[in-house]
Amino acid sequence: MSFSFTLHHTDAHSRARRSTFSTPHGDVQLPTFMPVGTQAAVKGLTAEQVRSTGAQMILGNTYHLALRPGETIVRELGGLHRFMGWDGPILTDSGGFQLFSLAQNTKVTEDAAVFRSHIDGRLLTLSPERAIEIQEALGSDVAMVLDHVIALPASAETIRDACDRTIRWAARCRQAGRRTDQAQFAIIQGGLDPEMRVWCARQLAELDFPGYAVGGLSVGEKPEEMYAVLDVVCPAMPVDKPRYLMGVGTPQDLLQAIHRGIDMFDCVMPTRNGRNALAFTDEGPLRLRNQIHQRDERPIEVGCPCLACRHSRAYLRHLFLADEMLGPILLTHHNLTYYQRIVSGAREAIEADRFAQYFEAKMAGWQRPAVS
Amino acid sequence: MSFSFTLHHTDAHSRARRSTFSTPHGDVQLPTFMPVGTQAAVKGLTAEQVRSTGAQMILGNTYHLALRPGETIVRELGGLHRFMGWDGPILTDSGGFQLFSLAQNTKVTEDAAVFRSHIDGRLLTLSPERAIEIQEALGSDVAMVLDHVIALPASAETIRDACDRTIRWAARCRQAGRRTDQAQFAIIQGGLDPEMRVWCARQLAELDFPGYAVGGLSVGEKPEEMYAVLDVVCPAMPVDKPRYLMGVGTPQDLLQAIHRGIDMFDCVMPTRNGRNALAFTDEGPLRLRNQIHQRDERPIEVGCPCLACRHSRAYLRHLFLADEMLGPILLTHHNLTYYQRIVSGAREAIEADRFAQYFEAKMAGWQRPAVS
Repeated sequence: MSFSFTLHHTDAHSRARRSTFSTPHGDVQLPTFMPVGTQAAVKGLTAEQVRSTGAQMILGNTYHLALRPGETIVRELGGLHRFMGWDGPILTDSGGFQLFSLAQNTKVTEDAAVFRSHIDGRLLTLSPERAIEIQEALGSDVAMVLDHVIALPASAETIRDACDRTIRWAARCRQAGRRTDQAQFAIIQGGLDPEMRVWCARQLAELDFPGYAVGGLSVGEKPEEMYAVLDVVCPAMPVDKPRYLMGVGTPQDLLQAIHRGIDMFDCVMPTRNGRNALAFTDEGPLRLRNQIHQRDERPIEVGCPCLACRHSRAYLRHLFLADEMLGPILLTHHNLTYYQRIVSGAREAIEADRFAQYFEAKMAGWQRPAVS
Repeated sequence: MSFSFTLHHTDAHSRARRSTFSTPHGDVQLPTFMPVGTQAAVKGLTAEQVRSTGAQMILGNTYHLALRPGETIVRELGGLHRFMGWDGPILTDSGGFQLFSLAQNTKVTEDAAVFRSHIDGRLLTLSPERAIEIQEALGSDVAMVLDHVIALPASAETIRDACDRTIRWAARCRQAGRRTDQAQFAIIQGGLDPEMRVWCARQLAELDFPGYAVGGLSVGEKPEEMYAVLDVVCPAMPVDKPRYLMGVGTPQDLLQAIHRGIDMFDCVMPTRNGRNALAFTDEGPLRLRNQIHQRDERPIEVGCPCLACRHSRAYLRHLFLADEMLGPILLTHHNLTYYQRIVSGAREAIEADRFAQYFEAKMAGWQRPAVS
C-alpha cells in the first residue's frame, strides 16, 4: 500500500502524538506544519528554499489551480509535483474554504456549489466528484474532500445542514476516487457545537478515510472556542489515522492543538506575516519596520539556521523600508523555519515524554510583553 | 598593494581583453558583468543566489545608500559587505548618474551638486569630497568619482563644461581619498563628441587612477553612436587599467563593447527585464507571459544551470499570470546567469583567440526573428 500511518508514541502527560505518515512521495514526521503553496508556489521561495526550512509536505489549492492554470495543464505537464518542482508529499485543499471565503455569489445545493470565479467572474460549478477529479488531475498525495463551510456564528439548523451535507459529500468523494496513489482525507465540520462535532467525526469515521481533518475553524472565533472544539473532537477521531487541523494558526495554536492530539497543520500566517515584516521568535513577534531595529546588529534569533538570520535586524529593516523584495523573501524563510522548529521541537519533546514542559516553556516566551 | 590588474591576453582579431582585477575581497576575472544591488540588495535574490549566477563583483549605489539607510549606519554595521552579506568585491557608483536621473531640481555648481531627495524632498549636497566620504564609510572595494552627467543631445559648450568639471572633480576625489583598501575609478565624459572623449580620457589618464570608466552613455543615444564613442575612447584609455562601461547594456552591447576593449559592465537590464517576464536567451528574448508558452514543457534554455531552467516555460508563465513573486525571482536568476554565461564565454573565447567567432555566433542567434 502506498499510504500508511504509524503511531510511535503518545506523550505521557498530554494527548500529543508522535507518528509517521507515509506517502508515495516520502514519509512525513508528525506533528508537522505544511507551508501553503496555494498557486503552485510558496510565495517568495524556491522549492529548494522551502525544503531548507525543514518542511516535509506542502499544500496546494484545488480552487486556485483549477481556475489558473487549470488542472488539465498541470496534468499534461506531469502533475503538480513536477509542475512546481517539489518532489515531497503534497496535500491539496478541496476548494470548500475558498467557496466560502473568496468566490463570489456562491450557491450551495445538494448536488454542487455554483460560484463566480474571483479572477474573471466566470460561472463555475464545484461538486464533490469534480473536486476529486481536479485533485486526481493535479496528482497530489492527499486530496481533501469537498466540504460545506459556513460563516460562524450560525444557527444550530444551519450548522446541522452544512454538517450533514459535508458527510454526504465526503461519501460521494470516496466513491469518486480512482487513484490508488492519492489518499482522501475527510473534513469534520460542526461549528462550535461540541455534540455536532463529535457526531460528524463519528459519522465520517465509519467511512474509514485514510485521514481526518478538522475544518471550519480559525474563521473568527476566539482561540479558547477553537481549543474547546479540539478538546471534544480529537477523542472522537480515529487513533490510527493522521489528524489535520485546517488553516491553523499562531505558534500558540499549534502547541495547543498538538497538546490535544492534532498531527498536521497548514496556515498562511508565517508566510503572509513574513511579507508584512513580522518575524516570529521565541520571545514573541518582532516587527522589523520599527525604528528600534535601525542600528541593531543582532539577527532575529541567535542560532536560527534560516537565511534571514545571517543578517542584522538593521539590514532586514532597511530592506522593508526600501521596498526590496528580499525583505519579504528573507522573513518568509525565517517564519517557515521558525514554524518547522516549533513542530520538530514538539516531536522531540513527545518522544521524551516532556511535551508538557516544552509547551510551558514556549508559551511563557511567547507571552512576554513585546519589545517591538 | 591591495589592488592589481593583470592583462593576460588580447584577442588576436579584436581589441577584446582577458585580464584579472584583484581587490581586497578577491579576484575578478575580466571581462565581467556586475549585477546591480542599488539599495544593498540585488532585487529578489539572496547573496548566495547572486553568487550562484556566477557573479564575482556587484554594484551598490552611493546616492541611494546615503539617503537610506545612511552611510553611517552601514559603517556602524561593519560596512556594505557585511551589511548585505556579500563577501566578494563591491563597486559603488558615486551618485553622479542619480543626480541627473532621479534627484529633483539638481543644481550643479563648481563646488557641489545641490538636489532634493527623491524619497522625502530633503535638500542635500553632494560634492566630490562628500561622494568619497560616503563611499569610504560604505567600504566598497571600488569607489567611483563624482561626475557631472548631462542629458544628450547637448551643445558643445555644455558638454565641454560638464567634461571639464568632471576632470576637476575627479582630481578632488583623488585628493579626498583616505582608504588604502578602496580604489577609485575615474569617469570619462564627453557626450558623443569623439575629440572631447579622447581629450577627457587623456586628462584623466594623467591622474593615474587604478581604473577608468566610460560614463554618460546609454542615456537614449543609438547603439551605433555608443559603439562609435567606444571605438575612439578605448584606445585613449590606459592599457594597464580595468575599463568599465557604466550602465550598459543589452547582450549585444556587452559583446560590442568587449570587442572594443571594455572589461567591466553593470546594468539593470537583466534584473528589471526579469521582473517583467522577459528572459534573455541565445535565440533572443522570450516573453514568458505570452500564450504560446501555456503548455510548453521546455525550460527557457536547455542546459542553463539557473533556478528558472529547472522548470517548464508553462510553469514560469503561470507564476507571472498568478502574480507570484517567484516568477520575478526565477527570471532574475535566469537573466543574471545568462549575462554571466555571456561574459564567461567571452573570457574563454579571448583566451583561445576566437572571440570574433564567438561574437558572430552570438550575434547571429540574437538577431533571429523572435518567436514570442
